[in-house]
Amino acid sequence: MADMASPRLEARQLRLDWADGGSDAFPYIWLRDTDPAGFHPRTGERVFDLTSVPLDLAPEAARVEGTTLVIDWPGHDEASRFELGWLRENRPGAARPDPAQLPATAWRGDLGAGGVPRARAAEVLADDMALSTWLRDSKEYGLSIVEGLEDDVEAGCGVARRIGFLRETNFGLTFEVVSKPDPNNLAYTSDALPLHTDLTNQEMPPGWQFLHCLANEAEGGGSVFCDGVAVAEDLAREDPAAFELLATVDIPFRFHDGDTDIRARKTVIRRGRGGEIEEICFNAHLADILDIDPAIMPDYYAAYRRLMQMTRDPAYLVTLKLKAGEMVVFDNRRVLHGRAAFDPSTGFRHLRGCYVDRGEFDSRIRVLARARDRAEAA
Amino acid sequence: MADMASPRLEARQLRLDWADGGSDAFPYIWLRDTDPAGFHPRTGERVFDLTSVPLDLAPEAARVEGTTLVIDWPGHDEASRFELGWLRENRPGAARPDPAQLPATAWRGDLGAGGVPRARAAEVLADDMALSTWLRDSKEYGLSIVEGLEDDVEAGCGVARRIGFLRETNFGLTFEVVSKPDPNNLAYTSDALPLHTDLTNQEMPPGWQFLHCLANEAEGGGSVFCDGVAVAEDLAREDPAAFELLATVDIPFRFHDGDTDIRARKTVIRRGRGGEIEEICFNAHLADILDIDPAIMPDYYAAYRRLMQMTRDPAYLVTLKLKAGEMVVFDNRRVLHGRAAFDPSTGFRHLRGCYVDRGEFDSRIRVLARARDRAEAA
Repeated sequence: MADMASPRLEARQLRLDWADGGSDAFPYIWLRDTDPAGFHPRTGERVFDLTSVPLDLAPEAARVEGTTLVIDWPGHDEASRFELGWLRENRPGAARPDPAQLPATAWRGDLGAGGVPRARAAEVLADDMALSTWLRDSKEYGLSIVEGLEDDVEAGCGVARRIGFLRETNFGLTFEVVSKPDPNNLAYTSDALPLHTDLTNQEMPPGWQFLHCLANEAEGGGSVFCDGVAVAEDLAREDPAAFELLATVDIPFRFHDGDTDIRARKTVIRRGRGGEIEEICFNAHLADILDIDPAIMPDYYAAYRRLMQMTRDPAYLVTLKLKAGEMVVFDNRRVLHGRAAFDPSTGFRHLRGCYVDRGEFDSRIRVLARARDRAEAA
Repeated sequence: MADMASPRLEARQLRLDWADGGSDAFPYIWLRDTDPAGFHPRTGERVFDLTSVPLDLAPEAARVEGTTLVIDWPGHDEASRFELGWLRENRPGAARPDPAQLPATAWRGDLGAGGVPRARAAEVLADDMALSTWLRDSKEYGLSIVEGLEDDVEAGCGVARRIGFLRETNFGLTFEVVSKPDPNNLAYTSDALPLHTDLTNQEMPPGWQFLHCLANEAEGGGSVFCDGVAVAEDLAREDPAAFELLATVDIPFRFHDGDTDIRARKTVIRRGRGGEIEEICFNAHLADILDIDPAIMPDYYAAYRRLMQMTRDPAYLVTLKLKAGEMVVFDNRRVLHGRAAFDPSTGFRHLRGCYVDRGEFDSRIRVLARARDRAEAA
């Protein structure tokens, strides 16, 4: 049985030798800090005070009672009690299982519009399992389409709010993508928009973007998407020096208008600790005057321009002509988006957008996974 | 005259020798990419397409006309025109001047409550110059007090909204710090709160926090603050190995309740590229089960506990007993806050809080600096 074990008291740690082989080390200070009795019964937050014990504390005794490890501490009346199965799962060095940690499937142009995951608005709104499936599909591809939305400007944000509250920006809690007479942003013109991620001038750009199509009758105006993970992975293989420049040299981004001047410095590609691609920040419109060392500037421009060309290469692009009642949903920190120019004299084009950050998106996946786990266990 | 210069065409760059000495190099590709004509006249965004020119482009000719550098490009009818003063200020390698980049003054307990910058609500609400002064003072210390707020639950957030929109979190757009019958957070109890920063479980915790005191009649309940920059700087000097662990080892944070499960991994101390202290994320309540390599765990615990002890050392603490009508304002990503326990049977204690992120805070400083510059120039 996996949960059978015998404890050994070593110099600074307790060792559990598991009945089915293997053993794990548990530093004493970790066991004291992690004692389930040290967490608030209602809030779940840690209330144990680490400064109340010496760093070199050691148990008086430890024993297994059934499937529970019991530890007696000197000068502390209450023994610590840990379930062995829990200890094994949460042993030091083992990351806590995370239902929101879903592997990204990098995609390229051959995915096609038909390969983009789809969900029905009515189902996502009414059914938690449908919501969970849609969020997990969206996370895998960084891109999905919800169809069957009501012809109501609030309908798209209503679906987004099923996940969590909206991320406000200097463009508001929601935004309208229509051509405006006095635009403060290129999105509000009828010009083509080359592929980009939004609001790279923010320290943390908005995570998930929701673009509900209310009308798309104008000629042109197709939406184009590109998976930044695929492009970055290919660049790393084809031109490692270019990739390295884009992943290590901070460049300035800026948006400014009459009431705003928001700036951030960052790399175009950001890697996680494990080397995986965590984020793409690519927006030529919001790239500020490049101020990096002139000695690396020619090489940097070559790398940056190469990435730019890749984001426009049909080999990477999926094109969608959104219909009224459809909403495209994408991870703005992974998937670049753009659009073809349109002729506003041939018909009306109106998208309404909003954002929900990655933190709230992942939180919803985790909370929904609780019900999923219960359903699977039943 | 500083703006007199003569241009030289070198292999990949144009060199300007300034009349008053010194010279700067401007890569040709940078000059083409930075041509003022390549930015949208209304939105200020870059519309020039970098892929439309070869990387090795070079001018046909360059000359100075008055205070303007004029560059003729092959195959491009329009010459680029740059003001020499602008070129000197924005030369590659020189960071754009930033009115929001104000040096932090690290403070310790000897600052005292009397040393905390103060502002009057009525002035901050009515006068842009008073607003600007208050924001700059707040940024320098990471902490300030606004006094004279109306006895209205919306008054504190009204002052915050002078800066920008509020940052929403899973606790809402605003939050009430009162003891609640069924708390999902230790702030909503009457317990003492050791020093911490809020929402370390968010990828980007909220920046500036605004706590408007509506009532503080209970015994106890004093507010305590600690400058994370001072603590981190001292730790780096006194125990460099401990500092290094806290600045390089990611640890897990988590908040979860019935509707939420938000997690992030990060270092407790974050440095900027120049080594300066950019952020402190310290919250023992929200620190999840520590899952790092057991081999470094004892050293990590020692470093973490030492930092914890420093944040409680009176040598670093400033204590304020907020009065009704006062609001304390602090950079939640720099200044730790806590409170003494209070006895809810002796009187009512009610704070109302909200957040504005660093990006919007700095944006307001920059926009206000435009008027400041105009006033100083006049």
